Amino acid sequence: MSSPAALEWSVDNCPIGRTLDVIGDRWTFLVLREVFQGIRRFDDLTVRTAIPRTVLTDRLRRLVDSGILRKEPYQVPGSRSRMEYRLTEKGLDLYPVLLALQTWGDRYLADPEGPPIEFAHRGCDAKVQLVMRCEAGHDLPRTRDVAGRPGPGARRRVA
Amino acid sequence: MSSPAALEWSVDNCPIGRTLDVIGDRWTFLVLREVFQGIRRFDDLTVRTAIPRTVLTDRLRRLVDSGILRKEPYQVPGSRSRMEYRLTEKGLDLYPVLLALQTWGDRYLADPEGPPIEFAHRGCDAKVQLVMRCEAGHDLPRTRDVAGRPGPGARRRVA
Repeated sequence: MSSPAALEWSVDNCPIGRTLDVIGDRWTFLVLREVFQGIRRFDDLTVRTAIPRTVLTDRLRRLVDSGILRKEPYQVPGSRSRMEYRLTEKGLDLYPVLLALQTWGDRYLADPEGPPIEFAHRGCDAKVQLVMRCEAGHDLPRTRDVAGRPGPGARRRVA
Repeated sequence: MSSPAALEWSVDNCPIGRTLDVIGDRWTFLVLREVFQGIRRFDDLTVRTAIPRTVLTDRLRRLVDSGILRKEPYQVPGSRSRMEYRLTEKGLDLYPVLLALQTWGDRYLADPEGPPIEFAHRGCDAKVQLVMRCEAGHDLPRTRDVAGRPGPGARRRVA
């Protein structure tokens, strides 16, 4: 076998790599899981994740800096004003990543009684799944029907 | 506002958390990106990722231990037999995670000329996208149409 064809191409401009730079960290994604479930306040975010407070401070700052979360002031009567964290549109667009992780996890890592959370269509209550579909309208149930290829931004790798 | 409803539920059996334990690491997922593109050999896996060799050894071992990659012997004439790494069915089932990361990255982090890689339907060459669809057959283009809810394995959190 000669060298794999993919090695001829550069990944310097790879958005998958850049995405992992932003969210490819276990703590970061656990924080997002919580925010996606409506948990928005610093102390609440520590309850189910057991994330160390210094780590949480750092990850929230990064998520705000990268435009995935935004800060919104809130005030409990009798206390000083604090900040809570909400998903931006850019953050909400990570939902398919969450669903993809959950789908795989449910298949391979769930306990026998099933997953503790499921995702449903607000309109009709039916469960939501991710489907691979091509622009010509074909559903692709099998991964083997999909192939990567150089895109418009492909550049030759310089050794 | 009272405490968020999600906080009443335990995440001890959360498959998303368990999935992140397995693949929620930037290096691990970069290795998978490469393997998904047909790059299977130890030295080849270091070319585009710049992953330190000790880290690669560790991540490959973990991916094999968790059943995502399997080892297959190969031999270059004149050299000793070595191992290459191939995706198992369990590993191939991570394709939607890869596609979800890529879709988001293309939207928010690609250079102006576009992404360096795209994914196409082998049958018709049209580009592949992830679609959220409910079991009643509705496509859900908007994240706001999807809501999490306790699943069959939901357990109350014990404080």
